[in-house]
Amino acid sequence: MPGDRFTHLDDQGRAQMVDVTDKAQTQREATARARIRMQPQTLAMIRDKRHPKGDVIATARIAGIQAAKKTWDLIPMCHPLLLSKVTVAIEEAGQDGLEILTTCKLKGVTGVEMEALTAASVAALTLYDMCKAVDRGMVIEEICLLEKSGGRSGHYQREDCELDDER
Amino acid sequence: MPGDRFTHLDDQGRAQMVDVTDKAQTQREATARARIRMQPQTLAMIRDKRHPKGDVIATARIAGIQAAKKTWDLIPMCHPLLLSKVTVAIEEAGQDGLEILTTCKLKGVTGVEMEALTAASVAALTLYDMCKAVDRGMVIEEICLLEKSGGRSGHYQREDCELDDER
Amino acid sequence: MPGDRFTHLDDQGRAQMVDVTDKAQTQREATARARIRMQPQTLAMIRDKRHPKGDVIATARIAGIQAAKKTWDLIPMCHPLLLSKVTVAIEEAGQDGLEILTTCKLKGVTGVEMEALTAASVAALTLYDMCKAVDRGMVIEEICLLEKSGGRSGHYQREDCELDDER
Amino acid sequence: MPGDRFTHLDDQGRAQMVDVTDKAQTQREATARARIRMQPQTLAMIRDKRHPKGDVIATARIAGIQAAKKTWDLIPMCHPLLLSKVTVAIEEAGQDGLEILTTCKLKGVTGVEMEALTAASVAALTLYDMCKAVDRGMVIEEICLLEKSGGRSGHYQREDCELDDER
Amino acid sequence: MPGDRFTHLDDQGRAQMVDVTDKAQTQREATARARIRMQPQTLAMIRDKRHPKGDVIATARIAGIQAAKKTWDLIPMCHPLLLSKVTVAIEEAGQDGLEILTTCKLKGVTGVEMEALTAASVAALTLYDMCKAVDRGMVIEEICLLEKSGGRSGHYQREDCELDDER
Amino acid sequence: MPGDRFTHLDDQGRAQMVDVTDKAQTQREATARARIRMQPQTLAMIRDKRHPKGDVIATARIAGIQAAKKTWDLIPMCHPLLLSKVTVAIEEAGQDGLEILTTCKLKGVTGVEMEALTAASVAALTLYDMCKAVDRGMVIEEICLLEKSGGRSGHYQREDCELDDER
Repeated sequence: MPGDRFTHLDDQGRAQMVDVTDKAQTQREATARARIRMQPQTLAMIRDKRHPKGDVIATARIAGIQAAKKTWDLIPMCHPLLLSKVTVAIEEAGQDGLEILTTCKLKGVTGVEMEALTAASVAALTLYDMCKAVDRGMVIEEICLLEKSGGRSGHYQREDCELDDER
Repeated sequence: MPGDRFTHLDDQGRAQMVDVTDKAQTQREATARARIRMQPQTLAMIRDKRHPKGDVIATARIAGIQAAKKTWDLIPMCHPLLLSKVTVAIEEAGQDGLEILTTCKLKGVTGVEMEALTAASVAALTLYDMCKAVDRGMVIEEICLLEKSGGRSGHYQREDCELDDER
Repeated sequence: MPGDRFTHLDDQGRAQMVDVTDKAQTQREATARARIRMQPQTLAMIRDKRHPKGDVIATARIAGIQAAKKTWDLIPMCHPLLLSKVTVAIEEAGQDGLEILTTCKLKGVTGVEMEALTAASVAALTLYDMCKAVDRGMVIEEICLLEKSGGRSGHYQREDCELDDER
Repeated sequence: MPGDRFTHLDDQGRAQMVDVTDKAQTQREATARARIRMQPQTLAMIRDKRHPKGDVIATARIAGIQAAKKTWDLIPMCHPLLLSKVTVAIEEAGQDGLEILTTCKLKGVTGVEMEALTAASVAALTLYDMCKAVDRGMVIEEICLLEKSGGRSGHYQREDCELDDER
Repeated sequence: MPGDRFTHLDDQGRAQMVDVTDKAQTQREATARARIRMQPQTLAMIRDKRHPKGDVIATARIAGIQAAKKTWDLIPMCHPLLLSKVTVAIEEAGQDGLEILTTCKLKGVTGVEMEALTAASVAALTLYDMCKAVDRGMVIEEICLLEKSGGRSGHYQREDCELDDER
Repeated sequence: MPGDRFTHLDDQGRAQMVDVTDKAQTQREATARARIRMQPQTLAMIRDKRHPKGDVIATARIAGIQAAKKTWDLIPMCHPLLLSKVTVAIEEAGQDGLEILTTCKLKGVTGVEMEALTAASVAALTLYDMCKAVDRGMVIEEICLLEKSGGRSGHYQREDCELDDER
């Protein structure tokens, strides 16, 4: 792998939007994950039905879906593409955290891992925004790609965002 | 703090863009941080002058600056605002990581921590995008607010994204 | 129909961008309509050649076309898509109104009624904006889908925005 | 009023973004309304707790808030501005409809009625989108300005979107 | 001037959005110009009343106005700002060209020359787009700043886009 | 050619987004060019390694790539499309200028010359923005289409932005 070239850089070392014109159109899917840690009381407020958990979670989920569609505008070398599915799920992760799982899918020539990662990141940022008045010390952590299928590089899967053991 | 109310939620528990019309216009500043861990070889390729480090870093920095200006469009309850300064700095963090430090500033009625956090997140996503062809297992981690000044809530500072000890 | 499920909601009742990956790529077309009622003098000013009708109408038409292309960004669960045609026509409707007719078309996997409806709505809002200095009481009304073809659900046509008789 | 000139049109009859540089900076507020009529069963599905009403309504509300912030991008002659508050409320209106009430506010030199109207329109379009699979015949109707305060033109109020009696 | 520093570059030579927090809020205005040369027949078609000149010109003018408002999104180091006036005028320039004159204005801390230049450029691109089916060889030329007032650097004026003689 | 019709104008002389639904999906490519003239000292500062040339050029190149993807949003009658490649190259042009060469590519139903021209224009505007503090008199000039292939109209090539001799 050390011998590999970065595909976004042409011969003169310039970042460019690489040519994917001739790549095969296949069904592609990617799943990403983010976590946000917070004070247990903050999580309790979200979980607590008297406190309107629904909207905190719903707002973050919608923000993540919307962000997935804007990935080409946020990440300079990303290609525009036609996402055919975006889902964002948010679950509790222990006493002090929420876990965001996103899946993006399309029939196209480019992978969708950036879209899944962007959705997860923006959903996490939105959770932060919705709760920052009561907990400024929240930390977004462990944004990573969990699974990817459908491209030339084959199927990829990892268990967790911890760096792979074989490294 | 458990008794606090989420300021984005009105009496019926609906998320809304809260009224800041009468807040004081003051100078506000926020600094955020993100880290991305990668294989040492990936970092070496970025650092290595033969491999065009400049553009990987420059692309991420520009993406972060652009994203700060779009925070109001990405985070549903964020107010539009007029950032008067955005900086994004990217440095090596050990043998296997990069650290992104962002600062946003304005004279206005709302804090700019979401802008700083969004800049850091999108810069990190862009680094991932630029390098994912050689290292799909990178992890974005520890996105947090480091410092904030200028609002009603006073000055805030933390040393690291690790959860505060007092928790 | 009461037994139907909303397709934007998954098993846990969460709004998601539904999976259209495997839907058939067909030619799809939709026509929508909006009306805006105004004072007869306001309409006369638009119609009157001395008053620059052309630009009021042209501005609204262009705004409608541009909005159709942004539907995926405005309506959270809409899929991005490649419109192959957008037309916006604006005609007089009686002594005190204008009628906007929009048509959108594409070869793709999702219907384009939201694009046609969004174009009609934004064209109407633009007419309001252009004339509000002289007539603040204008009302936008009867935005509805007139016709739709090309999808799994077959051809749909209605005569008017009045609620269907069979209801 | 027939003698008035459209403020968006200069001497040559060209639409322009009018000069508001010297207008007074005051607190401005506007409230708008939209209604969407649907089949009673569709409304029942939204209302019914087994059917996830929360997200249909929440999605529409968030879409409306986001759209208010994009009004300058949708309506060609609208000025960019810094909304300090946006609220979107959605209530049942009889057996077969929902009513959307939006309020926008800012301290600035331009009125915010277009922002309130745009929020109401896009929230209504989103309701249509969320329910169109079960009820294609919904009609958005009676989008109008209910109240406006803070500008040179004084306070404006209407009871309903029905055209004013004095017309 | 050779000794000057580029203000967008910090000590490490990184592009950043420079700090304008403490700059004086003054009234600022800028006028820019672009020209597009075309075949005389193409110009005749635009001028000719049978051919709908109105919309070609109107479309370009609206596109220019809209683009001025998006300058902060197009030019990475531009600050977001609140334009209080944008005008775009398009006139014939000889037998084979059109001239676009744009003016932008605001009360703020940053100049608006980029906004005026962006409006002129996008209006010219739109003219190209509207006419390219009949004249693919059109050339956009001489986009320059004609006048600028209101900033720290004082009043600036040039007669033409030709490079200044004193150079 | 004088007998040709502008394809963006329908029978009533209204600008519309023309119907391309039935056009052939082919591989299309376009190359455009822009030049910006500046004082020799300004060029020297960019070229000089002590002055951070890298970022000026990199920022302009990234801005051009991003703008290509937004062409449909900037030029009202442009169709949305899925660019499969965008490159922006910036080279010195004599003692007092820079030349920008852009190439866009896709497999689709519409040409990409507007995307290439938009990329060149916005890259030039960004160069202006990055250097305007030291050289306000820069002129962007000679934005033109150099080559186009893949559409119904066949291959097109010109040597320079000078108007064709046969005119």
